[in-house]
Amino acid sequence: MQNKDKTGKAEIISIGDELLIGQVVNTNASWMAEHLSDSGIYLQRIITIADEPDALSDALSDAISRAQFVLLTGGLGPTADDVTKPALCSFFDTRLVFHEPTLKHVESLFKLRNFPLTDRNRQQAWLPEACTPLTNSVGTAPGMWFEKENSVIVSLPGVPFEMKTLMEEEVLPRFKALFSEMHYLRKTIMTSGVGESFLADQIKDWENALPNFLKLAYLPQPGIVRLRLSGRHTDQKFLQKSLKTETEKLYKLIPNLIYGYDDELLEQVIGRLLIEKKASLSTAESCTGGYIAHLITSIAGSSAYFKGSVVAYENQVKENQLEVSATSLEKHGAVSREVVEQMAAGVRQKLNTTYALATSGIAGPDGGTAEKPVGTIWIALAGPDFVKSKLFHFGEHRGRNIRRSALTALEILRQELIK
Amino acid sequence: MQNKDKTGKAEIISIGDELLIGQVVNTNASWMAEHLSDSGIYLQRIITIADEPDALSDALSDAISRAQFVLLTGGLGPTADDVTKPALCSFFDTRLVFHEPTLKHVESLFKLRNFPLTDRNRQQAWLPEACTPLTNSVGTAPGMWFEKENSVIVSLPGVPFEMKTLMEEEVLPRFKALFSEMHYLRKTIMTSGVGESFLADQIKDWENALPNFLKLAYLPQPGIVRLRLSGRHTDQKFLQKSLKTETEKLYKLIPNLIYGYDDELLEQVIGRLLIEKKASLSTAESCTGGYIAHLITSIAGSSAYFKGSVVAYENQVKENQLEVSATSLEKHGAVSREVVEQMAAGVRQKLNTTYALATSGIAGPDGGTAEKPVGTIWIALAGPDFVKSKLFHFGEHRGRNIRRSALTALEILRQELIK
Repeated sequence: MQNKDKTGKAEIISIGDELLIGQVVNTNASWMAEHLSDSGIYLQRIITIADEPDALSDALSDAISRAQFVLLTGGLGPTADDVTKPALCSFFDTRLVFHEPTLKHVESLFKLRNFPLTDRNRQQAWLPEACTPLTNSVGTAPGMWFEKENSVIVSLPGVPFEMKTLMEEEVLPRFKALFSEMHYLRKTIMTSGVGESFLADQIKDWENALPNFLKLAYLPQPGIVRLRLSGRHTDQKFLQKSLKTETEKLYKLIPNLIYGYDDELLEQVIGRLLIEKKASLSTAESCTGGYIAHLITSIAGSSAYFKGSVVAYENQVKENQLEVSATSLEKHGAVSREVVEQMAAGVRQKLNTTYALATSGIAGPDGGTAEKPVGTIWIALAGPDFVKSKLFHFGEHRGRNIRRSALTALEILRQELIK
Repeated sequence: MQNKDKTGKAEIISIGDELLIGQVVNTNASWMAEHLSDSGIYLQRIITIADEPDALSDALSDAISRAQFVLLTGGLGPTADDVTKPALCSFFDTRLVFHEPTLKHVESLFKLRNFPLTDRNRQQAWLPEACTPLTNSVGTAPGMWFEKENSVIVSLPGVPFEMKTLMEEEVLPRFKALFSEMHYLRKTIMTSGVGESFLADQIKDWENALPNFLKLAYLPQPGIVRLRLSGRHTDQKFLQKSLKTETEKLYKLIPNLIYGYDDELLEQVIGRLLIEKKASLSTAESCTGGYIAHLITSIAGSSAYFKGSVVAYENQVKENQLEVSATSLEKHGAVSREVVEQMAAGVRQKLNTTYALATSGIAGPDGGTAEKPVGTIWIALAGPDFVKSKLFHFGEHRGRNIRRSALTALEILRQELIK
């Protein structure tokens, strides 16, 4: 094993057949990873195993040999695929005992929701004698805290909302109290417009000159590359200052490519800029089918600047609701500069907004032609005294075409707003 | 170790600091898990480790002691956070050699895309001498096939699209040829409308009587519970027949709760039903902000039945574009039966569709009052000779409120369409 000292180190064991046949994505582990790291705890491994007692016992032995904190999720639900509790009893050489406060808690939750209490729900009050139960304020399955060989082992329910609440209310505060920390900080720089290799070449001198306690990682997504600058140091202030200095140096190198920081979303940045300018927005969407409106309205408070959208999937809707001319539709087709510009101008006037974005394209997989293959997308922006548009050629994949079109539209608006 | 015989068993090692600080969700592992399982290969573990040579070497030793197939992803990108190749050379006691065909391939890709070739890209042609390179038809980093102690170790790039193409074109066909299989089949039954415990009680007699080679798992999501029935057997036809029989028995128990099978989406089912009825749909969305339109237009071919949407975030847009009466807005507020029904009727008439769905509610986190707290959502459905609506009380969380409102609206339409 690579780590003799297990202080401040953590591992996650995710239990569930559904994770091993790819039916469920392990978002619980990501969430826990993020919150452990924000608490200065170093997560060194995530192990996903089947709903099988032997697999759990093997994984537990390995994990407590390497880590001070071991987090288990999954396998505590009320249904019959539960194998975790008996396996934990066997591993910790203990037995199930009835825990009256847990039953009272389950009963009060069901009363509140006006649901009948079933035998399955009552079973959740049987807990391993060796554990300290952790109250689950939002669900029926309590967390369980065990200690063995100088490690803490915490078992949590797999329902994301319950796991998160238990982590925040019970687990993380206790972990922090047990661990005098090595400070960990990170800064994520959000870029858009160019690919990973090109970006790496632009910033390689800066990257090579980074101090050795800072580390850079490239995290590409469709249309976006995130740069994660992270470091560990005993002196928190010094670490903070170094991160700040390096981030500022980077900004001077590529000011136009950086749209935000720390996983900020393009739709958040747009919202902030629109509020600053006291401007409003509407959209007219064909190929994006409401996705731009959805991204914008996912942000709390978006009603301050977003008035609405006309999703004009059918040509008749473009004509009747957006005043696109029948002649343009006939002569140039719906996927054309003429139509997308009329859509933008039309929705801007109808909904009475400062700016309007419009999209018209062929998302696929059907509808492509030799002249306009799948991935051909027109995007327009209308403002107080202009309408402009641009043609893009994306790929073959419907979902990615919708996503790239929406993000590109937002980036076009951002460039206009920061002018 | 629990498994002495490693034949037909697989493990995945995911490499990347970004996975251990929760910045990226491990969707690569889920995709690989699904495709391994569909090939009859039993994935018994997913191990996520940091970009560190020692961690990789430890994880590799453990994995090849337990599994015939070990899949590695991540760490092969063109940028400087790459540690995988040197670590593999050390583990397999080999050195990097220049692989001319890989350079030619990288050059031709860059020529096609009209990008300049950088030194970083050229470095990708240096490969461990002990490996068989696997051609990456869609990217620059080749896969690498190693063999050791009767296990196969395959290293793949972390870019999802490239990993998937290599898996489908190169890796899975070779794995299948090496492994005479135990058949694995699964059927997923999609239910909506009731929770996990209630569902478990409804079907417990059926569940207890399942043959021992079949296994049932409950996979709850907001608004939906998936039931996964899976089994392993040497006789494929017998397995197929048993799954079919049990699925039919289950259907007879809970016909109204089942909306589809095998991860079918509610928006796909809606599309199929609308096509069968030669009916069309539009939406008028306030609190869902275009999300229903987005779900519907995510389905290829949706232009056959979906005409469009009016996202009426501002009250003025409800009045002007949907003919909602100013009096109703003033007297009852936007979140009311009167307004949501007028929205549904208004968009149905304006866009000339058979059916129309409308939503109006308080998604949060702001905008709640004592009378109408966050999570108060009205949903309406208008059809040829009716408009009906219903009030729901969801939770506190904006994103979940938007998602539950949209799925509930689709379920209301489905119930109408199957009448």
